[in-house]
Amino acid sequence: MPRLVMKFGGTSVANLDRIRRVAKRVGVEVAKGYEVIVVVSAMAGKTNELVGWVDQTGPFYDAREYDAVVSSGENVTAGLLALVLQENGIDARSWQGWQVPVRTSSAHSSARIEEIGTENFNARFAGGMQVAVVAGFQGISPEGRITTLGRGGSDTTAVAFAAAFAAERCDIYTDVDGVYTTDPRITSKARKLDRIAFEEMLELASLGAKVLQTRSVELAMRYKVKLRVLSSFEEQSDEAGTLVCDEEDIMESNVVAGVAFVRDEAKMTLVSVADRPGVSAAIFGPLAEAGVNVDMIVQNIAEDGRTDMTFSLPVDQIARAEKAVRQAMETGSIEFHDLIADKDVSKVSVVGIGMRSHAGVAARMFEALSAEGINIKVITTSEIKISVLIDRKYMELAVQALHDEFGLEKA
Amino acid sequence: MPRLVMKFGGTSVANLDRIRRVAKRVGVEVAKGYEVIVVVSAMAGKTNELVGWVDQTGPFYDAREYDAVVSSGENVTAGLLALVLQENGIDARSWQGWQVPVRTSSAHSSARIEEIGTENFNARFAGGMQVAVVAGFQGISPEGRITTLGRGGSDTTAVAFAAAFAAERCDIYTDVDGVYTTDPRITSKARKLDRIAFEEMLELASLGAKVLQTRSVELAMRYKVKLRVLSSFEEQSDEAGTLVCDEEDIMESNVVAGVAFVRDEAKMTLVSVADRPGVSAAIFGPLAEAGVNVDMIVQNIAEDGRTDMTFSLPVDQIARAEKAVRQAMETGSIEFHDLIADKDVSKVSVVGIGMRSHAGVAARMFEALSAEGINIKVITTSEIKISVLIDRKYMELAVQALHDEFGLEKA
Repeated sequence: MPRLVMKFGGTSVANLDRIRRVAKRVGVEVAKGYEVIVVVSAMAGKTNELVGWVDQTGPFYDAREYDAVVSSGENVTAGLLALVLQENGIDARSWQGWQVPVRTSSAHSSARIEEIGTENFNARFAGGMQVAVVAGFQGISPEGRITTLGRGGSDTTAVAFAAAFAAERCDIYTDVDGVYTTDPRITSKARKLDRIAFEEMLELASLGAKVLQTRSVELAMRYKVKLRVLSSFEEQSDEAGTLVCDEEDIMESNVVAGVAFVRDEAKMTLVSVADRPGVSAAIFGPLAEAGVNVDMIVQNIAEDGRTDMTFSLPVDQIARAEKAVRQAMETGSIEFHDLIADKDVSKVSVVGIGMRSHAGVAARMFEALSAEGINIKVITTSEIKISVLIDRKYMELAVQALHDEFGLEKA
Repeated sequence: MPRLVMKFGGTSVANLDRIRRVAKRVGVEVAKGYEVIVVVSAMAGKTNELVGWVDQTGPFYDAREYDAVVSSGENVTAGLLALVLQENGIDARSWQGWQVPVRTSSAHSSARIEEIGTENFNARFAGGMQVAVVAGFQGISPEGRITTLGRGGSDTTAVAFAAAFAAERCDIYTDVDGVYTTDPRITSKARKLDRIAFEEMLELASLGAKVLQTRSVELAMRYKVKLRVLSSFEEQSDEAGTLVCDEEDIMESNVVAGVAFVRDEAKMTLVSVADRPGVSAAIFGPLAEAGVNVDMIVQNIAEDGRTDMTFSLPVDQIARAEKAVRQAMETGSIEFHDLIADKDVSKVSVVGIGMRSHAGVAARMFEALSAEGINIKVITTSEIKISVLIDRKYMELAVQALHDEFGLEKA
């Protein structure tokens, strides 16, 4: 029998009424003849409650105990959904990570799935089980302790099960109805995409489109698991939502798939840095140690043995970054004349696998921004993405202009 | 190293502040040189919340899923207490039932502990673990499913660990400071007992003194585990609370240890039942099938082939009982002239192992009640207990009179 993985997030299982709706939706797929694996998150708010208690125990907690505590929310939802499915006449049972088993690394609170045991499920499916309800986000370490995969990890659980059981598809039910060309709150022209390539989704996910956990998309790409993102709050057809798939499965597509943005960025420039081999390491090493997430980096051409070094970072890490570079100067490992921080910038990116074969996308992007009088402060590019840093006040305008420029309102 | 089991109920771990108090109390025992096994319940109210959700899924739920859901509350407390103990510099870790493992029968929601694996704990204690925090109330079935032991089962978990690990004692921390000669709300002369025999505690527990789960006392008696009941809300000395122990460990004791009562009882009489061999089975079989908990039974001497059959039962089971006996009459399996129900009776009992060697306790009891003008409706006796059914309006008076008669205010 064909298999399907369905994943429901916290808002989709927030109370018994919603769990009943989920059960109905699962029933539809069972009726179609699928063996279904359902992956559930904790009821909305429950994980935060548990994390809050752990935080109250003290600042330096044992991640193994953290995992033992916070994983319990998913166990509750899995049991409740199995019960409701049974009420609907479906042969269902709940599975906790250690029961499957979902074997992970020992990196507590951010463990990686290493292997999913298939024997138990295959035996139970052969014995008539129609639905396996899996507590997401959790697994078991080689030491027999409970692990968790990090916040949002249930997406990764779902994709890993889809890969392990060769599921036809992995449907991620969430509170949005798919992946959009850009955030509909920025422009009403934003259009839901029917399909998007894994690579594009990865860039969008890492750019802050919070539809899917980045690691789940990486995993789906590696194992070619077809992912579908769709709303748990609407009646669904087979064509609903957005399919995240291999680029070979996308017939026609725009050169640019979407416009993404990160609103609260900052830019920091070290002015007139003494340029010598190893200076980059001397700057960015201490920043990394201080936990600063440096994103874009630009180095001016050196003149007279000195250069300007510019990088972007999240706004709330500025103080930490400044402290780190000043300490590096005091210890003599770097030397510069001035430090300028700009807290009012945003990052805007265009993403699309079509860029690989179409030249001139960058030029069109820069012209469109220029036509609106928007100054570009930093540029970075990858094979399928171009990002620019601009003044935050122009962010909405830039997104709208680029959405128009690349004709994203039309398929 | 000597070992100690400490058990804390839901009100003792109701929030982080109380969990910190529990950790402090555990620390005192660790400092004395004990290897400690702590058994915890769910935070007060949490199990009820979980049971409420399960109830919402429908009337005929799968007990296996019920167990998977409701057991999660204990896991949360165990992890949180381990974290707080670690903050206090104590080498502690949490253990869920399947990790120990606590092997139980497959009787979900009322499973019996069959074996506690000692290997993991012994290895960890040898490796420096000072405290094992165990999620109470739960275990694992031969099929690998999570089981629970029934409400209040954490007491049983604690006693089973004390037996398996040959603990010096099992301390049950609760919201009362020990076992009393009777309920202090009935008479201010009620006195906390320093020691009580297992057999006496069993009678008191089954009579509704809700200090300990009956099964935990049975288990303690079988394995001769010294149980101490004490308050988690008071500073403790080594002599605090009440020790439940073998009668050989009790030097001197009163003939009667305590006066117990069950307030809301009912009495039912089948008048002029056709008496023949098997009539008792014909009456009490259908009652048992209907889920009626018949307690005391009295049969009058038969005259002319007919007899009156009287029995006691909880007040809220009267309708069910009446339906069962009337149906039995309709099917012709029994025959009687009338059915009289008395909803206004209580049961009062005196309990004490001293009765085995002292005659005349029953006579003193009946005289004391008679002196107060209290009419006795039904009497039953066991080796260490005499119970009477009386009108409910005399219940407090009867308890006070018996407490005085047997001098229970004095040790």
